[in-house]
Amino acid sequence: MQNQIPARFWPHFSNRLRLLLLPVLAATAWSATLPLMPEPVKVVQQPGYLAIDSGFHAAIGGYSDARLQAALARFESQIARQTGLPISPSGDAKLQVTCQEGGSEYPTLGEDESYQLDVSASDAKLQARTVTGALRGLETFAQLIAPGPDGFQIPAVHIEDRPRFPWRGLMMDVSRHWMPLAVVERNLDAMAAVKLNVFHWHLSDDQGFRVESKVYPRLQQEGSDGHYYTQAQVREVVNYARDRGIRVIPEFDMPGHTSSWFVGYPALASAPGPYAIERHFGVFEPVMDPTREETYTFLDGFIGEMASLFPDPYFHIGGDEVKDDQWKHSAAIQAFMRAHHIATSRDLQAYFNHRVQELLKKHGKIMIGWDEVLVPGLASETVIQSWRGQKSVAEAVSKGYRSLLSWGYYLDHLQPASYHYAVDPMQGDSASLTPEQASRILGGEACMWAEYVDAETVDSRIWPRMAAIAERFWSPRDVTSVDSMYSRLPEVSRWLEWTGLRHRSNEGPMLDRLAGGEPSAPLRVLADASEALGFSGRRKAQKYTSLTPLNRFVDAAHPESPSVRRLENAVAALGTNPLAAAELRATMVVWAQSAARLQPLLANNGLLAEVAPLAQNLATAGKIGLRALDYLEHRQTPPAGWVNREQQELDRIDQPVAEVRLAAVRPVRMLLQALNGQSAAARRRDAR
Amino acid sequence: MQNQIPARFWPHFSNRLRLLLLPVLAATAWSATLPLMPEPVKVVQQPGYLAIDSGFHAAIGGYSDARLQAALARFESQIARQTGLPISPSGDAKLQVTCQEGGSEYPTLGEDESYQLDVSASDAKLQARTVTGALRGLETFAQLIAPGPDGFQIPAVHIEDRPRFPWRGLMMDVSRHWMPLAVVERNLDAMAAVKLNVFHWHLSDDQGFRVESKVYPRLQQEGSDGHYYTQAQVREVVNYARDRGIRVIPEFDMPGHTSSWFVGYPALASAPGPYAIERHFGVFEPVMDPTREETYTFLDGFIGEMASLFPDPYFHIGGDEVKDDQWKHSAAIQAFMRAHHIATSRDLQAYFNHRVQELLKKHGKIMIGWDEVLVPGLASETVIQSWRGQKSVAEAVSKGYRSLLSWGYYLDHLQPASYHYAVDPMQGDSASLTPEQASRILGGEACMWAEYVDAETVDSRIWPRMAAIAERFWSPRDVTSVDSMYSRLPEVSRWLEWTGLRHRSNEGPMLDRLAGGEPSAPLRVLADASEALGFSGRRKAQKYTSLTPLNRFVDAAHPESPSVRRLENAVAALGTNPLAAAELRATMVVWAQSAARLQPLLANNGLLAEVAPLAQNLATAGKIGLRALDYLEHRQTPPAGWVNREQQELDRIDQPVAEVRLAAVRPVRMLLQALNGQSAAARRRDAR
Repeated sequence: MQNQIPARFWPHFSNRLRLLLLPVLAATAWSATLPLMPEPVKVVQQPGYLAIDSGFHAAIGGYSDARLQAALARFESQIARQTGLPISPSGDAKLQVTCQEGGSEYPTLGEDESYQLDVSASDAKLQARTVTGALRGLETFAQLIAPGPDGFQIPAVHIEDRPRFPWRGLMMDVSRHWMPLAVVERNLDAMAAVKLNVFHWHLSDDQGFRVESKVYPRLQQEGSDGHYYTQAQVREVVNYARDRGIRVIPEFDMPGHTSSWFVGYPALASAPGPYAIERHFGVFEPVMDPTREETYTFLDGFIGEMASLFPDPYFHIGGDEVKDDQWKHSAAIQAFMRAHHIATSRDLQAYFNHRVQELLKKHGKIMIGWDEVLVPGLASETVIQSWRGQKSVAEAVSKGYRSLLSWGYYLDHLQPASYHYAVDPMQGDSASLTPEQASRILGGEACMWAEYVDAETVDSRIWPRMAAIAERFWSPRDVTSVDSMYSRLPEVSRWLEWTGLRHRSNEGPMLDRLAGGEPSAPLRVLADASEALGFSGRRKAQKYTSLTPLNRFVDAAHPESPSVRRLENAVAALGTNPLAAAELRATMVVWAQSAARLQPLLANNGLLAEVAPLAQNLATAGKIGLRALDYLEHRQTPPAGWVNREQQELDRIDQPVAEVRLAAVRPVRMLLQALNGQSAAARRRDAR
Repeated sequence: MQNQIPARFWPHFSNRLRLLLLPVLAATAWSATLPLMPEPVKVVQQPGYLAIDSGFHAAIGGYSDARLQAALARFESQIARQTGLPISPSGDAKLQVTCQEGGSEYPTLGEDESYQLDVSASDAKLQARTVTGALRGLETFAQLIAPGPDGFQIPAVHIEDRPRFPWRGLMMDVSRHWMPLAVVERNLDAMAAVKLNVFHWHLSDDQGFRVESKVYPRLQQEGSDGHYYTQAQVREVVNYARDRGIRVIPEFDMPGHTSSWFVGYPALASAPGPYAIERHFGVFEPVMDPTREETYTFLDGFIGEMASLFPDPYFHIGGDEVKDDQWKHSAAIQAFMRAHHIATSRDLQAYFNHRVQELLKKHGKIMIGWDEVLVPGLASETVIQSWRGQKSVAEAVSKGYRSLLSWGYYLDHLQPASYHYAVDPMQGDSASLTPEQASRILGGEACMWAEYVDAETVDSRIWPRMAAIAERFWSPRDVTSVDSMYSRLPEVSRWLEWTGLRHRSNEGPMLDRLAGGEPSAPLRVLADASEALGFSGRRKAQKYTSLTPLNRFVDAAHPESPSVRRLENAVAALGTNPLAAAELRATMVVWAQSAARLQPLLANNGLLAEVAPLAQNLATAGKIGLRALDYLEHRQTPPAGWVNREQQELDRIDQPVAEVRLAAVRPVRMLLQALNGQSAAARRRDAR
């Protein structure tokens, strides 16, 4: 094969490159690894397969209830969707689902979620103690179905499985950008698919109050632009989540992040107002007045109403990022502090938290708050959710509180899956805790803050990276191989489409929209080679508000490029896999042409003008890559200084353009590195 | 540019190739043509553009009602979807919508649908006599929005528009495969987008009875496998359609095509039964007994119930493909015929139709039926829907009936858009009618019979070809340029995605599903080069039933390949457009590699095994194409016999494989033809 790199090049690759070698060109090399995420505690694959055909169905053996029956109906329609088979049950049930008991109908913290799955060539058995355990096992079964020589099949396998942490969550901010019910529900389906069990619903913030209050209707009437969930919709979501073994934790952030409350109820604030829904992003001055009894009367009514709407015993009051300007400028508040010997603003917030905690207790709820709520005198049952890191987690649990880690799981930072995957709640300061203290680390939650996402883009900012985090929360602590994770992630990502997610399918129409009347194929090439910047990159780039359109190239581009990862693997495999060079060459030829092919799309198109330099950069990367491949292929030493000059060129085009990073630079850098290795070896040979 | 074909090649192209030349490489060459479909009666483009930004909104001037207000709300959310702008009305309304009157709230045959749209650089005015006219104009406005130098914009334009035919329909068969409510509703949205106004709902057939009857509940209980629309859902669909200016015509096919009725009510049949829901496709023996009074008592009750459920005055009774075996084998029926001097089975059906027509009249409905209902004595108000052609249409209208053409518009035959586009209700025998007779040709309906489609694939079998047929029904008779139609169709197809259709977005997941764990990109290449066979091709290929999975490659492949059409245009443009050769070469390189790249996907995959020869054929086409391009580019004469041999090879690979046609053969054939032209010219030169 013309483009094949001889195996003798192999020694020239550095150790870093060799580390990448194992999962060559995606799944092929990993055919023995089942495409499961999260990885189960124990998997023993056996010879043979169970065929899945149109007659496939599951039956309940033993305990049965409405939740389990609904789960089986959903499961069968999931199988129908993902296989395209017109499932029409006939013959014996191929899958027997046996639960010992129902467990709690509304899922509870620490409930038994274990299951055991046994698949043989003739049938399958799923056993679980509770219905929730059966739900988890059904997802495993569905993930395992794949095409085989005679149609769809599932491998014969023995699986034992249970979660590592009892609290495995996703927080979704629906305030900064509104997320319609359908977005919430499809994300709940996907959460269930990767065995997450807590939906943390960030329902209020400066930019919007998103739930209907019948007691204080001006909250949503004045504070939401008409974008809020009715109480009937909230109940629908709670039931939808419950059916999937997911708890729903509402968050009403207070006393800060409350501008939207004050539009309808300015008397709650620490300064007179009037107030408007905040359109900008950041930390703002409006903050509740903790010194007036009317504030607590209001919150008593509000929390009472919400406590009956949300069945979960846990209730999140936020408590983060409180600015004290309004407190400092209020003579009345300052007088109150002096009269009550409250020395600092932090103490004043502690006083507020204490009062709120009493109200929560009155209404049967347990408080959760962000790091900042952890102050002396906090009730011991409180759960601390840490955005600051394992040090905060360790501090909280060593003081007797329970804690969750969210630091390291901020999806809006658009870090690669490997970044989040490497973060463990039990790392750092948490690693040296006593077992008793460590047991109070309940798990973690990924956070989808919504400054730079809307209903169209949010799925692609959560998924598939959320699946890798779900594995961190569910799978045993020693499941840490980044290569294994990435070898499974693309397939899991495609499978997740069948839950109704649009993380992949929304990209095409968004690119079509940008391309105007032209076919968007060249734009897709650019998008595949690009990665969108996250929170800090976008915040720096321009002044966003909640009304800034999120319809640009950066919004269509994904946080992490699976195509580029495939090419990185191909570079690492140049010595061993004959397809690797062909794959690299084919891609880089297309890259080299990209600027020219994008010309007709960019002409006269104000939405795309900003990516013209990016297209030029991609063409440059392609040309450098092709030259490097030529040198490698012919074992030539490039002219003196060529590698250095091209590395500088790569540094230049590695700079973000239009809030997008050119991921294509990475495999080209690896090629230059391989060339350096080849040249050094040649020099050693010559010196002999 | 290396691959550019010198302009001197141009004379070598045949006339046929030159005809294809105008719309070179899709939209670029047609930038002056607005991407509107159906094309309006009169379009005068003016200098300048109206900007569409987040503040955009429309206002009602003059007549207002709930239907118009709802239309404007839908319109604004359509604009938000298609532009990605967070529409948040501010400032003055940029579009003023003025109707003179409401018109009928439920749309009526022949109502005024005209509108006039005037867009200037500062604002836009839409004027219509009725709300229905305003609905049509809003779709035109939405279609015109595109990205420009400063963001989204709409060109300044003066448009006058009105439909050519008052009856512009789509028939959807929901019996042979079940189509859930969401499928119906998204297709109604798309119908409205291209100004169709009749949804013909084929609700019963041998394979399923799809609507709830409260009077005869065993119809859906026994005859639907649980897949039917409740009466509440029917009302929802009727209102949904009404809001979009679309009438809903129910069809209950009788006396044949009625197996599903007889499962619950065997006494209706002409033979004792028992009956089962039919799983096969074809024309079957079960047929209603026209000789028993109980049949008419039943139909009286049934039609009465349905008449109140469906507000439209027209009611379709099918009447096609009646087998008379049961009648011939029934002594009682034969005795009845003798007693009533009914000579033939055809006369017996005429008797039945007459009785049914009386029942329809009693319940205030006008009968529609397929060709076969046209027998002497038929009431003059009847509408004949012709699946047989313009001859039938002409016969019906010359006898005083009104008529619709469906022949030539059978979407399930998967003909190219150009095929349907060339069919006109006024052609053939209809062309020689008197104006008075011709006025009784109401229009036409495209038919989506559902043997080989399901909820996942039906959109791609209707769209975008339906848009070309909609143009035939709406636009003036002289709008017949196939090139113009194809230059607009791809953009219209992409725009239609924003109505919620999945004709494009379902392809990717279907290919992913077939590809198993492997990335599906090489399969997408094959799909882009392929075209699915229609009704007759599939019927010949294997024995299908309603339970046969429709999850194969043929189901993911589309009826017509826009990529291949683009390449045909590129071949035609070789002499004039420098990009053409590059585009051809790039594509054919990828084709030539396709078999190799598909290898890992095909290994061990029983679902894909059947396309292995197709992949080989595509590689062959790519290789022939590349060689031909080389010869053309270097002005070389190929070796003697080469062109002939390769043409034979193309003939061989032009044979369908796995119910798929290799569309890629077409541009390669054109290249060989161009080569022949070049050689002939060279011979002429040498002979001089």
